[in-house]
Amino acid sequence: MPNKVEEFNAYRSKMNEKILADNNKIIKRIFNLDTNAFMEGALDVKTKELLGLVASAVLRCDDCVSYHLESVKDAGASKEEVMETLGIATLIGGTIVIPHLRRAYEYWEALEETDS
Amino acid sequence: MPNKVEEFNAYRSKMNEKILADNNKIIKRIFNLDTNAFMEGALDVKTKELLGLVASAVLRCDDCVSYHLESVKDAGASKEEVMETLGIATLIGGTIVIPHLRRAYEYWEALEETDS
Amino acid sequence: MPNKVEEFNAYRSKMNEKILADNNKIIKRIFNLDTNAFMEGALDVKTKELLGLVASAVLRCDDCVSYHLESVKDAGASKEEVMETLGIATLIGGTIVIPHLRRAYEYWEALEETDS
Amino acid sequence: MPNKVEEFNAYRSKMNEKILADNNKIIKRIFNLDTNAFMEGALDVKTKELLGLVASAVLRCDDCVSYHLESVKDAGASKEEVMETLGIATLIGGTIVIPHLRRAYEYWEALEETDS
Amino acid sequence: MPNKVEEFNAYRSKMNEKILADNNKIIKRIFNLDTNAFMEGALDVKTKELLGLVASAVLRCDDCVSYHLESVKDAGASKEEVMETLGIATLIGGTIVIPHLRRAYEYWEALEETDS
Amino acid sequence: MPNKVEEFNAYRSKMNEKILADNNKIIKRIFNLDTNAFMEGALDVKTKELLGLVASAVLRCDDCVSYHLESVKDAGASKEEVMETLGIATLIGGTIVIPHLRRAYEYWEALEETDS
Repeated sequence: MPNKVEEFNAYRSKMNEKILADNNKIIKRIFNLDTNAFMEGALDVKTKELLGLVASAVLRCDDCVSYHLESVKDAGASKEEVMETLGIATLIGGTIVIPHLRRAYEYWEALEETDS
Repeated sequence: MPNKVEEFNAYRSKMNEKILADNNKIIKRIFNLDTNAFMEGALDVKTKELLGLVASAVLRCDDCVSYHLESVKDAGASKEEVMETLGIATLIGGTIVIPHLRRAYEYWEALEETDS
Repeated sequence: MPNKVEEFNAYRSKMNEKILADNNKIIKRIFNLDTNAFMEGALDVKTKELLGLVASAVLRCDDCVSYHLESVKDAGASKEEVMETLGIATLIGGTIVIPHLRRAYEYWEALEETDS
Repeated sequence: MPNKVEEFNAYRSKMNEKILADNNKIIKRIFNLDTNAFMEGALDVKTKELLGLVASAVLRCDDCVSYHLESVKDAGASKEEVMETLGIATLIGGTIVIPHLRRAYEYWEALEETDS
Repeated sequence: MPNKVEEFNAYRSKMNEKILADNNKIIKRIFNLDTNAFMEGALDVKTKELLGLVASAVLRCDDCVSYHLESVKDAGASKEEVMETLGIATLIGGTIVIPHLRRAYEYWEALEETDS
Repeated sequence: MPNKVEEFNAYRSKMNEKILADNNKIIKRIFNLDTNAFMEGALDVKTKELLGLVASAVLRCDDCVSYHLESVKDAGASKEEVMETLGIATLIGGTIVIPHLRRAYEYWEALEETDS
């Protein structure tokens, strides 16, 4: 497994665990909602994860983009679908999204290497 | 046709026309891209419009939300799909999205009245 | 009661009711969390509402500012405390906060008239 | 004088006066800095006001855009220079800037009518 | 002293010194205001620093969060008060605040180690 | 050449090349527009690049700031002009711009070393 994906997930898990162990009720419930919001409903999981990806990209949150890239991939999205989603993000959010697009592209490559 | 939808579209068309008549090349090309980005590709039109809606909502742009609500409806999205999309926007973007959610809901009602 | 406060609260209640009647689980839970987060805990209610006010101001959400101005007032904050909070918001968030500061000041005046 | 420009300036002056009368030291100093920052220095006034305009536009602050459009015009900027500035804002800030571009265009027209 | 806190403060001091030595009047005054705004007034220092913390968190500025975490701690805030503040930030600012919450938690731990 | 400038440009070129090779039409056109928008028009190149710099700074995009610092320097801007631009950014965008100001200052120093 490439370092980028591994490192991100390890740090994310370690810190999430610490934060949740702290028992702040508001934070725990938000984490919980985050899991529920992306389950199948009227929209399927892949569509919801693409919604999460485009929202993360226009808000320029690299870690959120990395997280949703992985879920989007697990939900079966193709690279072309991901690029169309990121293209819409760049158009709506403007060229300030481009640095995040570069890092998203790099992370997607790391995810693809992980599978092979 | 209810006033809200009619007024928004009339103002939008009038000003877009003036802006485009001004012949600023960058602005004209961005308007043009905006049309192309939401055409069918690897993703279908409805999914792309939902992406546009969620991005507009987390960026808290009321006019962009109104515009994508109309396109999303034209592309065949149900109210339940729209609400799931706005739910994800509120979770990712936080409670500051709620005032925009209220206006989005109101605009959706106006769009529904327009059809009937 | 002055129009500004009355109108805002009437619209807010009407739309919240409609949205909650729609039974989107994610949105309902976020509304619910919003109530819980500002209850007394390690921090008292007034401090929490001031936190809500400053966050709303730097994120430039007029409706959120109006809402928290009312709660902050109900929790016993003085005008001087509110102005110090908005001063910090303007320093951290920059001069783009100033138009929201003007509207916040106007809303605070409307709230004061409501009491008298 | 057309209503749009007149109304905006009247409201702005009235509220600024009230806020400054309140004697919050931080807010007063920020208002003061705002005047100083746009005075001639290494850069001339027109360039500085164009910087203020593009920053206001990408941050999507309509009142700030209106204010800087007036100052930019007073500093001698042509409509073409203003449109190039707003074109850069729309490219960098994305299509969510477009609704603000429409209102900016409308305000510029109101300013032009004021002069004639 | 742990590296994270030490490094951040060293870099911050070094660069602030260089920037201030440059004698740009606007920047110097903003730095000066930043010191004054968090002094005791109608609100006490701890409350003001918590306001600074929540504003920094919703604006997703890691360095600002680190800085205010240190001041908040110096002003006597408990971990529980800090977590309630960050919980409000995550609710208002949405799940895109979570990556910053992780880094804030990590920095708080580094601050606690520094004291022991 | 100092590492900071070299590294940034190498990463930027490598990733841009990969992204453009991917043939997403929307993204390719946005990249293309980005080149055109900063060419001489009614405004000269230096002014346009300063507009790009201030927009990047208030939107708090470090990579965009680095990129425009280099172009601004190539277009003949002096350090004093750059500092006035960044001062305006800090005033309009608030103290949350300060961490980006520190990194901008550091990058400018790296650019100056590159020339000597």
